[in-house]
Amino acid sequence: MEVRTILVEPKNEENIGAVARVTKNFGFSDLYLVNPPNIGKKAFSVASHAYDVLSGCTIVNSIEEAIANSAIVVGTTSQPGISVNRHLRMPFFSPQELKKKVEDKRGIVTLLFGREDVGLLNKELMRCDLVVCIPTSPGYPVMNLSHAVAIVLYELRDAGADSGERPLARLEDKERLFAHIRAFMDEIGYTEYKKEKTALMLRRILGRAELTAREVQTLRGIVSKAERKMGMGEDETPEHRCTE
Amino acid sequence: MEVRTILVEPKNEENIGAVARVTKNFGFSDLYLVNPPNIGKKAFSVASHAYDVLSGCTIVNSIEEAIANSAIVVGTTSQPGISVNRHLRMPFFSPQELKKKVEDKRGIVTLLFGREDVGLLNKELMRCDLVVCIPTSPGYPVMNLSHAVAIVLYELRDAGADSGERPLARLEDKERLFAHIRAFMDEIGYTEYKKEKTALMLRRILGRAELTAREVQTLRGIVSKAERKMGMGEDETPEHRCTE
Repeated sequence: MEVRTILVEPKNEENIGAVARVTKNFGFSDLYLVNPPNIGKKAFSVASHAYDVLSGCTIVNSIEEAIANSAIVVGTTSQPGISVNRHLRMPFFSPQELKKKVEDKRGIVTLLFGREDVGLLNKELMRCDLVVCIPTSPGYPVMNLSHAVAIVLYELRDAGADSGERPLARLEDKERLFAHIRAFMDEIGYTEYKKEKTALMLRRILGRAELTAREVQTLRGIVSKAERKMGMGEDETPEHRCTE
Repeated sequence: MEVRTILVEPKNEENIGAVARVTKNFGFSDLYLVNPPNIGKKAFSVASHAYDVLSGCTIVNSIEEAIANSAIVVGTTSQPGISVNRHLRMPFFSPQELKKKVEDKRGIVTLLFGREDVGLLNKELMRCDLVVCIPTSPGYPVMNLSHAVAIVLYELRDAGADSGERPLARLEDKERLFAHIRAFMDEIGYTEYKKEKTALMLRRILGRAELTAREVQTLRGIVSKAERKMGMGEDETPEHRCTE
C-alpha cells in the first residue's frame, strides 16, 4: 500500500510542520493539505529535516481533489460511535486493526485528519470507507492533531514495505457504484426516510469489504441486470467498466 | 504497572505542554521534569485540558531524584546500537516489546526521554535497565520529543489496567546489588580495563531479567557468601535486606 495523509483545514501551522516531520520519520512523503493557513517559517522550523515533505506537499481546495485515486479512504475521529445502528462512526477500527486490513493490499490508503477544534464534519466522515479511532482515555480522548497522525503512521509504518497481492478498486469506480445503487433505490421506490441511512450502511459495508476493481464491475453488472429486468435504468455503457 | 514519564532537560516549553497532553490522552498522570525551562502560558496553551497533569508535574534537579522508587528504568534513543558487543545501547527493544515485558509486572516503569537536540547522554543511558528505540525510517530517525513520548505511551496505554503478578525490586535495592558486584570485582582483582564494560553488561542482563526484591536479596547473598569464603567483604548486615 501507499499511504497518503490529508489534513483537512488545519488551523495551526506548527501542527502542519509537526505532521510533515512525523510523516518522514515513518518513511512516508505523500502529504495533502485542504485549505491550510499560510505556511511560513514556523511550520518549516517545526518540520526540521522534513522540509522536503513540507515543501513538496499538495495544497487543494476540496477533499474531493485530495482523495482522488485512493483505494481506501479512512476518516479519523476521537469520538467513536456508540450504537451499531448508527453507521456514521460505526463500526470503527483501531490503528492496529487498520494495519491488518491494508497490509496485504495494493493501492493508495488515504488518511483524513480533521480540524484541531471540530475534527471532520459528519458529511466528510460519510465520504470515508472506514472510520479509525485511536484508543485514548475517556478522561481526555482528544489528541493533538500531529500526535494522532504520529500514532496512525507509526502503526502503518511497514504497510508499504511489501506490495500487496490484491489491487483494490479506485475511489472513482466505487463512487460510480454507490451512485448507481442510489439511483436503483430511487427506481425501486425505497422508503425515502430510510434511504440516507441505508446508503451509508452500504458504503460502510462495501468500504470494509475492500473491493477489487473486478468486484465493483460485477456488482454494477448485477444492478444493471436488475434494472433492465424491471425495464428501468440505462443500457450497459462503456462507463460501467472500471479503470484498473 | 504504573508508568512515570521523565523529560530530561527539555528546552522547549511547547514540547512540555504537548507531553502533558498526550500523557493524559493515554490515561497517565505521573510526569517529572529534570531542569526544565520556565513553564509559562505557551506550555499551558499546548497542554490544553491536561493543565492538571502539567501543573501537577514534579520538577527536580537530577535524574537520581526523578527515578527514585522505580522498578524498571527505560532509556529512549533514536540511535540503536549496532554491535551486540557494545552494551550501552544493546540489546534495544521496540515500544511493543517493552509493553510485553512490563504488562504482567508490578511496580513503577519509568521512561526517560532526553533533550531535543542531543537526547540522553551516555552516562544517563548507562543508568537505565533497558533501552527502547522507536522503529523509524533511516531517512529521518529523529522524532519530535512529544511524538516519541506519544508512541511509547500509546503502546503502554493498557499496561496499568491489570495489576501484575510479579512485584519487581525497586531501583534502590538493585543499585545496592550493582554496587556490591562492583566491589566484588575489585576484590577479586578483575581486569581494570574490562571492568566498566562488564559492569554495564551485568546491568543490561539484570535489567532485562526484571528481578524481584527476593531475587535481588538472594543474589546479594551469593556475593556475600563468596566474599566471606575469600575472607573479604563485610559481614551480613540488615542493610542487605531488600525493602519490599
